[in-house]
Amino acid sequence: MIDFPALSEIVTSTPSKIIMLVADGLGGVPHPDTGCSELETANLPNLDSLARESASGRTVPLVHGVTPGSGPAHLALFGYDPLKHFMGRGVLEALGIDAPLADGDVAARGNFCTLDDDGLLTHRRAGRIPTSESRPLCEMLNTIKVLGVELSVLPVQEYRFVLIMRGDGLSDQLTGTDPQRTEAAPLPVDALSAGATKTADAVNAFIAQAKDLLKKEKKANMVLLRGFSQLPDLPSMGQAYALNPAAIASYPMYRGLARVVGMNVIPTGASFDAELETLAEHYQEHDFFYIHYKPADAAGEDGDFEAKVQALEELDARIPRLLELDPDVLVVAGDHSTPAIMAAHSWHPVPVLIRSTLTRGDGVDAFHERACAAGSLGTFPATNLMLLALAHAGKLTKYGP
Amino acid sequence: MIDFPALSEIVTSTPSKIIMLVADGLGGVPHPDTGCSELETANLPNLDSLARESASGRTVPLVHGVTPGSGPAHLALFGYDPLKHFMGRGVLEALGIDAPLADGDVAARGNFCTLDDDGLLTHRRAGRIPTSESRPLCEMLNTIKVLGVELSVLPVQEYRFVLIMRGDGLSDQLTGTDPQRTEAAPLPVDALSAGATKTADAVNAFIAQAKDLLKKEKKANMVLLRGFSQLPDLPSMGQAYALNPAAIASYPMYRGLARVVGMNVIPTGASFDAELETLAEHYQEHDFFYIHYKPADAAGEDGDFEAKVQALEELDARIPRLLELDPDVLVVAGDHSTPAIMAAHSWHPVPVLIRSTLTRGDGVDAFHERACAAGSLGTFPATNLMLLALAHAGKLTKYGP
Repeated sequence: MIDFPALSEIVTSTPSKIIMLVADGLGGVPHPDTGCSELETANLPNLDSLARESASGRTVPLVHGVTPGSGPAHLALFGYDPLKHFMGRGVLEALGIDAPLADGDVAARGNFCTLDDDGLLTHRRAGRIPTSESRPLCEMLNTIKVLGVELSVLPVQEYRFVLIMRGDGLSDQLTGTDPQRTEAAPLPVDALSAGATKTADAVNAFIAQAKDLLKKEKKANMVLLRGFSQLPDLPSMGQAYALNPAAIASYPMYRGLARVVGMNVIPTGASFDAELETLAEHYQEHDFFYIHYKPADAAGEDGDFEAKVQALEELDARIPRLLELDPDVLVVAGDHSTPAIMAAHSWHPVPVLIRSTLTRGDGVDAFHERACAAGSLGTFPATNLMLLALAHAGKLTKYGP
Repeated sequence: MIDFPALSEIVTSTPSKIIMLVADGLGGVPHPDTGCSELETANLPNLDSLARESASGRTVPLVHGVTPGSGPAHLALFGYDPLKHFMGRGVLEALGIDAPLADGDVAARGNFCTLDDDGLLTHRRAGRIPTSESRPLCEMLNTIKVLGVELSVLPVQEYRFVLIMRGDGLSDQLTGTDPQRTEAAPLPVDALSAGATKTADAVNAFIAQAKDLLKKEKKANMVLLRGFSQLPDLPSMGQAYALNPAAIASYPMYRGLARVVGMNVIPTGASFDAELETLAEHYQEHDFFYIHYKPADAAGEDGDFEAKVQALEELDARIPRLLELDPDVLVVAGDHSTPAIMAAHSWHPVPVLIRSTLTRGDGVDAFHERACAAGSLGTFPATNLMLLALAHAGKLTKYGP
């Protein structure tokens, strides 16, 4: 949680409702041919109209210049300092598949891969084998026993799986085995601290058995493990903000993140339309909703400028469905920028708007990077967004006399 | 003090003079009928002209979204982190009446009130009895003795008084007695920590005697106590900034705040005109002046948009009297926003300008929220304002080689 010890004294539960729409990878940078970003290129009548009656600005995901993964970027939006609360890839993957992760468990992200006869990597993702083929391999690996550690191998999607270890005194201070290139051999797991030696030995014993079990498989004869991590100990959003928060996200990792911060994760379908239906159905049950929109980020990561423009336009077309619910506060935010011309996440500040009965527009007439830079919220740390949302919802009382 | 340990190495005493005008509750939000804030509605020829030759921007009083009381908001303007240095209502009230508060003393804000025959509150402010009537009641309560604690009951204004307790091992970790509504009985004082039990007992003993002494009074037959607090241990502004600072404020609480940060509080009259006269008379004696303007906040708290506009225009008409003194640096700031349409303090960033020989305007042609949002100072934490004032006055040297 952000460094504001008196928060518990000023939060107050009220009937007002907040919807926080997080458009993943929302921000971008101008295309060199046109000088316009994805948001500036897209036709966004609903978001532009919203901007004209909102307070707008830009969030800095972590600190200026630092590009976040989706995990830290989301934690920041929820008001947690992502520099204090690190959440590893293994934990995120495990949470995303509803794996029953307990305090102290160590989770790792696993990839099936292929080795040549010399033991060198030929494909780090085993030709992206389909889930139907990786699932039986996971079941096989799940039979592996290592003394003193309880192991689970759970399929995620395609070539990806999660390894979860449970036992006394486990540590996540371990190096990964992925050399990050082909024609190299997988690395052994090393302990990064003295207390992690036992865990490193257990993982290496698991890998040796896995190699043996997989040696006759043609499509995936080895595993790579990385992102060893344990659950961070986070205060719950519900308690910290006196809210009853819910998350609606079709992608596994975002559900996992929401669960770690104590949100009620409502089951939903695979599309944003399904998410919107879920939101409408459950709107009476909670006072805070986080709803996640993925396609803008996916298109940005693919480096597909046009696809990202289209993803933004498709989001825009669905804004009226949020407004129909008439939330007291509507926040449209992004976790980070994913400029298509970079084909990657970036550090750039992300446009944001907050619409409530207290906002009357601040002269900003469009929802994009340049327009929002002139908004009344200014450019501010993403970790402050929850406070602003609560303030606009009348859920924060005065600090100090 | 803000988190800048090397500050003492870069501050330097010079003959240059800084005036910091703090217009209480300066900022606002647009009126729904006009789309213009109080500052945008008011006719402010002098402040607008000043904005054209100043560096301008907006201060964030605490953190985005958090609404401050005047105490923390002023501490921030003076460069103290209000989240680290909490100053309770009792302390602020005591300081405002020049009560001789010592380290370890516990002060509480007191209200005279009225109870019906069943002991339930009928008026939490005793019908706002005038000071002439509350003063003799305070003198009566001042005779109360409680073993092991030295008690003082001092009148403030109308129905308000201060209780000060002196003795060994007192604690301010106490709950208040005001149930915040009529038709309820006053609450007993509870200790919030084990070390506060003795103090809680003493306060409850005082209250029992006070009830007995007041029982025949018609206009005020009981007291309510809240805001139990002790002096925070703050470094002095004079030492921290190598300044000889003075405060000119007609309202008690602001004088008290200034005293806690080590300013010389110059006695002054009850109006802003009187404050301006005091400033001119004592202008040669100090190199930093904090001068406080209250009416904008009062009108905002009353929810009176027009009165706030008028208060701002009245302030504007007096700007030439500040300019006549030709200060090296003139800062026009607000401690927080008090939007009339909210009839309360708010979290919104507050317009600020700094005028010195180093400023030549930054394209901002008016002094209001929207214009200042585009100013060269940007939107920044109020705790940095003193550093900017010192810098513009040539009172900060370079940090590091």
